[in-house]
Amino acid sequence: MTTQPTPEDKFTFGLWTVGWPARDPFGDATRPAVDMVESVHKLAEMGAYGVTFHDDDVFPFGSDTAARDNHVKRFRAALDETGLVVPMVTTNLFTHPVFKEGGLTANDRDVRRFALRKVMRNMDLAAELGAQTYVLWGGREGTEVDMAKDLIAALDRYAEAIDTLAQYSEDRGYGLRFALEPKPNEPRGDIFLPTVGHAIAFISKLQHADLVGINPETGHEQMSNLNFTHGIAEAIWLGKLFHIDLNGQHGPKFDQDLVFGHGDLLQAFSTVDLLENGAPGGGPVYDGPRHFDYKPLRTENIDGVWESALANMELYLSLREKSKAFRADPEVQEALEAARVAELSRPTLNDGESYDQLLADRSAFEDYDLDRARTQGYGFARLQRLAIEHLLGVR
Amino acid sequence: MTTQPTPEDKFTFGLWTVGWPARDPFGDATRPAVDMVESVHKLAEMGAYGVTFHDDDVFPFGSDTAARDNHVKRFRAALDETGLVVPMVTTNLFTHPVFKEGGLTANDRDVRRFALRKVMRNMDLAAELGAQTYVLWGGREGTEVDMAKDLIAALDRYAEAIDTLAQYSEDRGYGLRFALEPKPNEPRGDIFLPTVGHAIAFISKLQHADLVGINPETGHEQMSNLNFTHGIAEAIWLGKLFHIDLNGQHGPKFDQDLVFGHGDLLQAFSTVDLLENGAPGGGPVYDGPRHFDYKPLRTENIDGVWESALANMELYLSLREKSKAFRADPEVQEALEAARVAELSRPTLNDGESYDQLLADRSAFEDYDLDRARTQGYGFARLQRLAIEHLLGVR
Amino acid sequence: MTTQPTPEDKFTFGLWTVGWPARDPFGDATRPAVDMVESVHKLAEMGAYGVTFHDDDVFPFGSDTAARDNHVKRFRAALDETGLVVPMVTTNLFTHPVFKEGGLTANDRDVRRFALRKVMRNMDLAAELGAQTYVLWGGREGTEVDMAKDLIAALDRYAEAIDTLAQYSEDRGYGLRFALEPKPNEPRGDIFLPTVGHAIAFISKLQHADLVGINPETGHEQMSNLNFTHGIAEAIWLGKLFHIDLNGQHGPKFDQDLVFGHGDLLQAFSTVDLLENGAPGGGPVYDGPRHFDYKPLRTENIDGVWESALANMELYLSLREKSKAFRADPEVQEALEAARVAELSRPTLNDGESYDQLLADRSAFEDYDLDRARTQGYGFARLQRLAIEHLLGVR
Amino acid sequence: MTTQPTPEDKFTFGLWTVGWPARDPFGDATRPAVDMVESVHKLAEMGAYGVTFHDDDVFPFGSDTAARDNHVKRFRAALDETGLVVPMVTTNLFTHPVFKEGGLTANDRDVRRFALRKVMRNMDLAAELGAQTYVLWGGREGTEVDMAKDLIAALDRYAEAIDTLAQYSEDRGYGLRFALEPKPNEPRGDIFLPTVGHAIAFISKLQHADLVGINPETGHEQMSNLNFTHGIAEAIWLGKLFHIDLNGQHGPKFDQDLVFGHGDLLQAFSTVDLLENGAPGGGPVYDGPRHFDYKPLRTENIDGVWESALANMELYLSLREKSKAFRADPEVQEALEAARVAELSRPTLNDGESYDQLLADRSAFEDYDLDRARTQGYGFARLQRLAIEHLLGVR
Repeated sequence: MTTQPTPEDKFTFGLWTVGWPARDPFGDATRPAVDMVESVHKLAEMGAYGVTFHDDDVFPFGSDTAARDNHVKRFRAALDETGLVVPMVTTNLFTHPVFKEGGLTANDRDVRRFALRKVMRNMDLAAELGAQTYVLWGGREGTEVDMAKDLIAALDRYAEAIDTLAQYSEDRGYGLRFALEPKPNEPRGDIFLPTVGHAIAFISKLQHADLVGINPETGHEQMSNLNFTHGIAEAIWLGKLFHIDLNGQHGPKFDQDLVFGHGDLLQAFSTVDLLENGAPGGGPVYDGPRHFDYKPLRTENIDGVWESALANMELYLSLREKSKAFRADPEVQEALEAARVAELSRPTLNDGESYDQLLADRSAFEDYDLDRARTQGYGFARLQRLAIEHLLGVR
Repeated sequence: MTTQPTPEDKFTFGLWTVGWPARDPFGDATRPAVDMVESVHKLAEMGAYGVTFHDDDVFPFGSDTAARDNHVKRFRAALDETGLVVPMVTTNLFTHPVFKEGGLTANDRDVRRFALRKVMRNMDLAAELGAQTYVLWGGREGTEVDMAKDLIAALDRYAEAIDTLAQYSEDRGYGLRFALEPKPNEPRGDIFLPTVGHAIAFISKLQHADLVGINPETGHEQMSNLNFTHGIAEAIWLGKLFHIDLNGQHGPKFDQDLVFGHGDLLQAFSTVDLLENGAPGGGPVYDGPRHFDYKPLRTENIDGVWESALANMELYLSLREKSKAFRADPEVQEALEAARVAELSRPTLNDGESYDQLLADRSAFEDYDLDRARTQGYGFARLQRLAIEHLLGVR
Repeated sequence: MTTQPTPEDKFTFGLWTVGWPARDPFGDATRPAVDMVESVHKLAEMGAYGVTFHDDDVFPFGSDTAARDNHVKRFRAALDETGLVVPMVTTNLFTHPVFKEGGLTANDRDVRRFALRKVMRNMDLAAELGAQTYVLWGGREGTEVDMAKDLIAALDRYAEAIDTLAQYSEDRGYGLRFALEPKPNEPRGDIFLPTVGHAIAFISKLQHADLVGINPETGHEQMSNLNFTHGIAEAIWLGKLFHIDLNGQHGPKFDQDLVFGHGDLLQAFSTVDLLENGAPGGGPVYDGPRHFDYKPLRTENIDGVWESALANMELYLSLREKSKAFRADPEVQEALEAARVAELSRPTLNDGESYDQLLADRSAFEDYDLDRARTQGYGFARLQRLAIEHLLGVR
Repeated sequence: MTTQPTPEDKFTFGLWTVGWPARDPFGDATRPAVDMVESVHKLAEMGAYGVTFHDDDVFPFGSDTAARDNHVKRFRAALDETGLVVPMVTTNLFTHPVFKEGGLTANDRDVRRFALRKVMRNMDLAAELGAQTYVLWGGREGTEVDMAKDLIAALDRYAEAIDTLAQYSEDRGYGLRFALEPKPNEPRGDIFLPTVGHAIAFISKLQHADLVGINPETGHEQMSNLNFTHGIAEAIWLGKLFHIDLNGQHGPKFDQDLVFGHGDLLQAFSTVDLLENGAPGGGPVYDGPRHFDYKPLRTENIDGVWESALANMELYLSLREKSKAFRADPEVQEALEAARVAELSRPTLNDGESYDQLLADRSAFEDYDLDRARTQGYGFARLQRLAIEHLLGVR
């Protein structure tokens, strides 16, 4: 592909992605863990903008302050050498067995207190490194046995935890925004806040609702066979798309974390189109990092790791170019017009019209020309054909 | 089964359920449509509390006022004779071809105006019949071709429509509460507001958010392989469970609308437990109608229709009894205690504790006994075994 | 797109595809049924090779011989005028309510006898029109209530029916090959022979197993989230790919019947690559019709119908070109070599090697260099990147 | 529950089930591995009949002969002390990184040779311990990148391997029968032989087809949302149900390996009914071990491990009792009669009837009473209600 990624493209990677040692539920690690310093350098060379991390990615679980500081020092040096930034940080509340029954919503209150402390500790580091966004993925918050959990109290505790953390960020002047990451299942049988929608609904009841949004992940929504582009559109509409995790997934199965676009390529196209160009009728566009949360295939050695990292960025850039060409194509514009896409931006009621006026408008109901409406074609087949021609580069 | 349904159980049925003529995408109707008057009488005999309807269930699409009034008169007479009530009403914005590209979010603005009028017309009837809840299922609001719809404008129009309708209800003194019914797909490839979560998130931005909640359907959530009990728990937590549709579904496939419990029986048990007994730690309990939105199998004649209608109610009553026995069982109480279920109702912070105090509590982090926490067992296997013993009646 | 379909490309369409009046489970027809004569002419103009049909597509259910002959005459005239052929024919055993509980496996034996007769009648026509393949889609063969069906006897009856039909074809000199079309569900809750695999396994026990193969449909396998390319590869390996239905689907949901490639585009690429180029190591290639079994979107008028018909063919041709360029690309060849793809064609045992010799080969086990094997990379990330570059036309 | 498991019930467990240390893709082990000797004793106490194992469950990967013999000796002693038998053995071709790209179908031929040797080595032990069945689960045989695998050659190699192993068993006089275990995905993106059907279809081409059958697992079929009872019915019909893995799963998501029945309880009932009582019309019944392949929840300590092991057996026994009561219930028998379930065992053609006679039978087609057929009810709603009453113990 011709386009080279640059920091202006705002591509970021989790340290845990390229660093994944490729252990899976049925197999041992196939690669050594990549040292974070190597990852930072290599990603910088390839044109990335930044990196992100869980506490345990930078310093081992249980590190005391001195050990932690040493690891952080090495990490900062790599950042300084490369110019990579850290726009987002998160906490690992899932690997250690202490979290086997949950972190912020564990039945065991002491586990919850420990979890809160673990998050606060890494928020300090996030602020120190200049992060703007703090992600919370509650992978262990959920159930396999519904009768063993008070589902209402769990949400109370979840809210208590997030409001406490938000208050902490405010009081300390960290200025962090929080982004909840939904996932329907795995590792738990059913995870709380399973989709983009459930997470945003939950946020609406928080005291610090303004500081909290979401970090949707392509594959997590597709694990429920939901349309990811629709999901982020609703999040944008609600002002809650605080961060985004891009990757690939082949429908409802285990979490594949494929390279972005290597699952549903057509939907990846509409995702990039929305992120880069906004809705056809205008409105807010996402301008945060394009964050890849993927896993290099377990069959690959270190060369395949970097190959796949690059593939994420290159595919995104290709889709961006194609989406811009699609929007600019006069035939597409004509087809959008024929499909009356822009008409949806016109309010249903006239400017200043009351429902009484609508009720009085016989052309709206009593005299409405149903025949015309039911026989008209919308020309969506043509639009889809044009979109695919642009995607495949055959126009 | 021993328990007989009575109106106190608040069982309601849509007229379109028992009345379904059993036409499916690959087959013609196998039964004549049941006359609504017969349905009302038969359901009353079996112990139902009420019926619900779309406008087109009571009077054919396109009926003028005189024709409509005649049909309504017959319907009211049946209600009066039987004592059945109409706690919920809804609108059909999906059958007629005019809605092929959407109703309240159609690209064609005239379709949206027509749809609004159709809803308002049936709200008048709903109020007249004393309904408290008005359901909106937007089965045609969605896409197959993402590029052919402004996903942001669609939500604007959806919100405009619902706020207009809510205002109409308020101004007219109808006192209706609105309940959005989420569904992920079918008939559209991807429907807007696909889950309980997406619908509640959407509501949070409405001007009349207080008047709008949801009407979740068992099978619709299970079509995304989501846990229905978790979904309604979140809705209860947010004060948004305004109505409920109970039925059965075998996971992600076409919308089966089986009899309640004839899909995931174990989850039906936790659903009834939550609805009837509330969360273990207390809190609000749903007290609205138990509404069945199911379809009698296409293989059945009219006897099978009534057989299946009864099966919904009887299974619900059985699960209710079993859930009460489960909660009352001393061994279950001991197991819940061992699993620390009640402990989740205790806030994570002590009464009045600040995060500074938590940070200063060395027992919470620095001196925390990780070994105890990671090796403790939660006893969930035992709880599940007990729940299943109650469900199967083998205790 | 630049390439024009021609009859040499062997594209065929079911009359029921472009002719679909767009009635769905929640909505009435949005288009008039297209007359079969118009469909034949239009498809011929666009470059199709042939058409296929159910009996009820050409003459209404219940037609007597005279009426049937008239319809067939009109149809033949259109074929003669256009030169389109009829390589495949099938029977409708699902629309009429008589089949509500099954056709060839109905509990009611009289229904089974009627179904057999209906198939034989249309086999006569198939032979008359020169068809080589007779498809059987058993959409009504299945259950919603497992206890209401003898699952073993059902397979006995299914086998009895197909062997009877095969014998009939042989004795009459029709020379037909039969192709079973698997589908997991819809319209039945669970359909018998739900996947490519189940159908071929079933065939292995038939008396006329040689005459029976399968007609897999892209979307039907994807409704179970199975890899369609893998499925047809196994069918090819077993010599059972007698016919193919190409279309699009977005994972486990209702049967969408989208245009080919408008679901999982990446998998459509590997499907075309396999069909057109065969396995990398050689072996049999499918040379039958490329049959599209899709439904034009319900939002479209007749223009959209033809637009979408063309889209199927054009996309297939684009993928064919791209797959050939992929195979011919020297860098791809090098990557395939590095990934050791061809090595899989080498038997695991040496020519003439016995397992005793393998047991004696210490290099195979005792002295095997595990370290090299576990650390080697397979370069699949690179191959995928190259494939996607070819697909997107960015090389 | 009242019924106690006994060895006559033929319950068996994999050593890897109760022994699972509860490591998952996002979390470290929460329990120490249970020593196999403890597992054997504990399972015997609870009434199990036998245990099964992968080589690596009994002696660590890479053990030399002396080490292996020591481990085997300890294992045999435990068997001798308890009387437990080993009816099935299998090989681990998935945990070690050497198998990251496959075992018997790896592109790397040396890996395939190593895999064959590893299987043969454990077949020796299987024979020594008196096993009758050898299971092969090819969890690593598959792809994430279709272009990186010759899908046809892969099946050639798979067949070569299994025929070689079957020959080895025959020549050595081991008398083993082989059972392939299908799974659609996880750990690979798409696994070869993804369902019961695909595996049996594959077997039909083997030279030693008679020696090879399948080992279906409840959850594996349900991961594709397929009906497990239907799947095993087809396997029984084809004489290929050589072994069975019982567990629980909540539809298409990661492999949950829940306790049997703790997923789809209703389907578990029809599974047990078929296994224990056979088809209503008679025919072969499965008489092999009832093998549980499940994982105790990660939240549990060792008490929960044994609790869950017992739950598998107790639930099976409860379902067995209920299925027998269901079959014996006169009202059920009457309902089965009304549903014409037994009629499906009557051939569609009369004894000795040719298709010519069927063609001549005007009552079968020309004079067939369609009205009666299309209006008749099958009474399936009643049968389902009765089944559920038996299941819930409310009759």
